[in-house]
Amino acid sequence: MYALILAGGVGTRLWPRSRRTRPKQLLDLLATRTMLQVTYDRIAPLFPPENIFVITGRAYVDEVRGQLPHLPAGQVVGEPMGRGTAPAIGLGVLQVRRRDPNAVLFSLHADHHILRDKDFRDTLQAAADVARDGFLVTLGIQPAHPETGYGYIEKGRALGHPGGHPAFRVARFTEKPNPETARQFVESGRYLWNSGIFAWQASTIMDEMARWMPALHQSLLDIEAACVDEAEETVLDRLWQTVPSESIDVGILERSDNVVVVPADVGWSDVGSWAALLNILPSDSDGNVSLGDHLAMDTRQTLVYSAGRMVATLGVEDLIIVDTDDVVLICPKDRAQDVKKLVDELARKKQDQYL
Amino acid sequence: MYALILAGGVGTRLWPRSRRTRPKQLLDLLATRTMLQVTYDRIAPLFPPENIFVITGRAYVDEVRGQLPHLPAGQVVGEPMGRGTAPAIGLGVLQVRRRDPNAVLFSLHADHHILRDKDFRDTLQAAADVARDGFLVTLGIQPAHPETGYGYIEKGRALGHPGGHPAFRVARFTEKPNPETARQFVESGRYLWNSGIFAWQASTIMDEMARWMPALHQSLLDIEAACVDEAEETVLDRLWQTVPSESIDVGILERSDNVVVVPADVGWSDVGSWAALLNILPSDSDGNVSLGDHLAMDTRQTLVYSAGRMVATLGVEDLIIVDTDDVVLICPKDRAQDVKKLVDELARKKQDQYL
Repeated sequence: MYALILAGGVGTRLWPRSRRTRPKQLLDLLATRTMLQVTYDRIAPLFPPENIFVITGRAYVDEVRGQLPHLPAGQVVGEPMGRGTAPAIGLGVLQVRRRDPNAVLFSLHADHHILRDKDFRDTLQAAADVARDGFLVTLGIQPAHPETGYGYIEKGRALGHPGGHPAFRVARFTEKPNPETARQFVESGRYLWNSGIFAWQASTIMDEMARWMPALHQSLLDIEAACVDEAEETVLDRLWQTVPSESIDVGILERSDNVVVVPADVGWSDVGSWAALLNILPSDSDGNVSLGDHLAMDTRQTLVYSAGRMVATLGVEDLIIVDTDDVVLICPKDRAQDVKKLVDELARKKQDQYL
Repeated sequence: MYALILAGGVGTRLWPRSRRTRPKQLLDLLATRTMLQVTYDRIAPLFPPENIFVITGRAYVDEVRGQLPHLPAGQVVGEPMGRGTAPAIGLGVLQVRRRDPNAVLFSLHADHHILRDKDFRDTLQAAADVARDGFLVTLGIQPAHPETGYGYIEKGRALGHPGGHPAFRVARFTEKPNPETARQFVESGRYLWNSGIFAWQASTIMDEMARWMPALHQSLLDIEAACVDEAEETVLDRLWQTVPSESIDVGILERSDNVVVVPADVGWSDVGSWAALLNILPSDSDGNVSLGDHLAMDTRQTLVYSAGRMVATLGVEDLIIVDTDDVVLICPKDRAQDVKKLVDELARKKQDQYL
């Protein structure tokens, strides 16, 4: 079994802590180790280091290698630019199929939070069993609330219990539903969140790419051929910008009828915004999550994330407060998704020092 | 004419900018000069430096002298401890009556904001005319809203127009009314806010003290007698703690039937809380007042006061945000008066570094 850790995100919605030069996955946001390191530690019992690959932005390669000293340096691949998850996964597939086309390859994100590591590894084992039968496997999360920022998976026919773990044919994918639809999905009990964590044999996903994303498939073959004579970095510099940009969800999973979902009850969160930290982290009796020095008076359901200063709150509720060396962010938790817009605005105003 | 500037407050409700070691009146909160300096500049056209006294806390004497280099050092008096406005004014009265018992003495606060300086000086001249007839004069402010944090003055019989300025007998003082009463006061048109700015002859206020505050009167005579042989500082160290603590409002003005109010339309604010700055300072089209770098998105009626960091707000309304080197404060503007409670809590927890 092989694992591919996708570590190329920018984590804009966790600004101002997450910055261009140091995005979410490279930060110790929730622990003393970074999210990337925690992700690595979590899967290390299942994979030897030489079976783990990390795909990240070119600018982060040195930082990633520094954070993961046990990983052979060549297994950290830097994309010259982001092209979505399908090409990134494709690069991992090329690495694996050279060694063993029938090996199972997992694709995971470097910036997800998972509460129960052991249950997670057990779920990966179950997913591998299903993947070995030639399916495209995605892990599905029991929805905790009618989240509108996630993709939903409708469960179809049960597949039996490989490895003692339930699995279902995927009847339908629905991206980011409106609030009413999300509510119906959650109430029906038939829907799971799409975690973006996948398992498949290298040969299976390569075949599916050939069918559903032929341009990407050809690009990958071109890259593979060029790498015989040239260094991978040089090849990517030349060819990566010609690779079609697409997510694996849209490109393959939503089209293929070969997709199976394995429910994962592991305490998953994509830490997609500051509001997610209010759900993930332990709160006090007023529902406040305080990271750093927080003086709270008549304060409820509020996240305080402080880099060093004391944050004093009085009479506030449902608020996100993030204090960094050069920026203080304040927004209601139900606007946490729009933090991205602030970053866009700063980019527009060319205030690069804050990006 | 003499002026006594009361500069002994601690400005707790403007924490965390106002600190024990550097209270509100010694800060450049609203301008490039401090509130004390602005107060001095405002009255300087009416009083030569040798006719201006400043009463402040012992700890602030050097700072006050440094901020007001034109003022003879001996005219800055340091109280060993705060005893309320009546004893502080009493000290000023002692200074003035030695020189001219019939001189008019003004009492002003070092931490008030006044928009129209020239109108203010004209009003002081009018108040002096009334004071010379033996009245205790207080300046009354036309209420702008049903503020519950101020004292209200009910106007009585008109006194005629000395110096072309209206003046009224005071029918009644009411301290900090409840919201419903405050609303009725404002609607009636018969009430003015008590500004705490007074004018009277030294002899008049000394006589009133003898009648209504005989213990204070005796203390002042004792201090005056002791100062013949000893330095004022030594005398105060010995006697000040025995002086009864009281405000001039409660001690005399609410009792005497000799009080006259002169309306003052001068753009007055006592800058009593951060919320006051939202009223005083120029706002943008969304009603925001931004001092420092403020990135505002969907933000209304919000005060941002920043010491250097950028403050980014998204989807907030009616909020006070104050960023200093070591503390960030966030509260709704209608809780601005309660900032004092945060300071009390820090004092209780002995977190003196933040006081």
